Amino acid sequence: LGIGDDAAVIKVKNRSPALVTTDMLMDGVHFDLVKDDPRLVGRKALAVNLSDIAAMAGRPTVAVVSVSLPRKGGRRIAVELFKGIQKLATEFGVSIAGGDTNSWNGPLVIAVTLLGEPTQKRPVLRSGAKPGDVIFVTGELGGTRLSKHLTFKPRIEEAQWLHKHFRVSAMIDISDGLVSDLGHILEESRCGAALRRKAIPVSKKKGVTLANALTDGEDFELCFTVPAKDSWRLAQLGKLPSGVKVAAIGTVISGEGIFWLEQAGSLTPVKAAVIGYRHEFD
Amino acid sequence: LGIGDDAAVIKVKNRSPALVTTDMLMDGVHFDLVKDDPRLVGRKALAVNLSDIAAMAGRPTVAVVSVSLPRKGGRRIAVELFKGIQKLATEFGVSIAGGDTNSWNGPLVIAVTLLGEPTQKRPVLRSGAKPGDVIFVTGELGGTRLSKHLTFKPRIEEAQWLHKHFRVSAMIDISDGLVSDLGHILEESRCGAALRRKAIPVSKKKGVTLANALTDGEDFELCFTVPAKDSWRLAQLGKLPSGVKVAAIGTVISGEGIFWLEQAGSLTPVKAAVIGYRHEFD
Repeated sequence: LGIGDDAAVIKVKNRSPALVTTDMLMDGVHFDLVKDDPRLVGRKALAVNLSDIAAMAGRPTVAVVSVSLPRKGGRRIAVELFKGIQKLATEFGVSIAGGDTNSWNGPLVIAVTLLGEPTQKRPVLRSGAKPGDVIFVTGELGGTRLSKHLTFKPRIEEAQWLHKHFRVSAMIDISDGLVSDLGHILEESRCGAALRRKAIPVSKKKGVTLANALTDGEDFELCFTVPAKDSWRLAQLGKLPSGVKVAAIGTVISGEGIFWLEQAGSLTPVKAAVIGYRHEFD
Repeated sequence: LGIGDDAAVIKVKNRSPALVTTDMLMDGVHFDLVKDDPRLVGRKALAVNLSDIAAMAGRPTVAVVSVSLPRKGGRRIAVELFKGIQKLATEFGVSIAGGDTNSWNGPLVIAVTLLGEPTQKRPVLRSGAKPGDVIFVTGELGGTRLSKHLTFKPRIEEAQWLHKHFRVSAMIDISDGLVSDLGHILEESRCGAALRRKAIPVSKKKGVTLANALTDGEDFELCFTVPAKDSWRLAQLGKLPSGVKVAAIGTVISGEGIFWLEQAGSLTPVKAAVIGYRHEFD
């Protein structure tokens, strides 16, 4: 399974399958060293990868870290970065196996590659959603970029628990925004979705709107689908054993597009203007 | 086996050991997009990692690629980079499993993480050299940065052949310069070395001196040690089956330091000023 899911599933002859994912963070784009603690930057560089392994319901194992340090102050930044990485690595049982340390006249760039293993039966892909499946999200959505994008907790434990106790048919982590990332599941699964406006768990943080919950990047919560038959049991829980909320927000439907399920039962398109973060270059 | 060898040897419960290595290349440091073909930059980003797997006598399997593209012209650069990566990947049987594509206002940064497997008995480490072992290098040394640093051929095939037919006690790829990289073997093996000046295979390219052969970075040849008993057979070959030259350049000795073995049999230190590329930052 190559490019396109949260992590790649790699199968080498005579080996059980492994997961691999990689993310690169750049100063001024994913963090801002003028105000952000380099320890939290290191933490985030690993955390975003943990979130990808979570989205496959995997168990993280080994990471490697590459950095391009600014020449000025680079040594101090390196020490802090690695402290932040190591702390989170320990928390999630990840070994830091190596890396590559460079310096240059440019801004800080950090790339982490994380290996993992599928848990239980197999990795959960984006492509397994079927019409009738119920769509869930963990936690609360929106406004993360203003607050906890450096400190969010990757949903490794939650994903494994869900995978163990429910038939999770598709899963993704919300890094580009709910609509955008749910869109990836729907595209890979060749389905559409009908969402209930009132079911979206909009963050209670001040100033966060439904639009934020739909489009803000870097929530790093899980969006996943469960066959209808199993979904009632999960919807009734309200919270996972870790204390993280879980909410049923809608249903997978046949056809294309993301719609609001109106009270009268009709479907109106979720506005096309509402798209998540896009990587732009010419 | 953590940080410190060419690649990390990772051992996850119930799995056979795997190799992992990562390298980050930055525009203006490891290449120069003003004059260098982005296809060759992509090639190099994978090739330096292949060289690390070669230094463990490993077989490369799967790579992931992260890039930060300059916003201006980024799309064209991305296409060319990936063409260069894919061509070399195909040549060496590597699958590109995924990656992370970003854009920013900074220069091009590319990080490749490469997985591999040990071949034959086990990976060859830096730490296995013993006094009396003979020191070998492949190919010719020096001046590479001026010519073939973008087009060098990683010594995967040569390393595997050597590992299969000889007892290779320690091995490294020459990325920072012969003296510096041999120094890593000696440091990890707690030994010294006596080299024969005339045996160093100085590149015949115009203007390349012995000093270049000792200190130029990015030769990406192999430096390795073989127990004396096996060494004669290898030294007599002159060339490996691939056509690449192999030369015995000296002997591992007890104690510390790298020396010239003078004709009269005395040892004089290889000048301390002669050190390879250092990663500098404050």
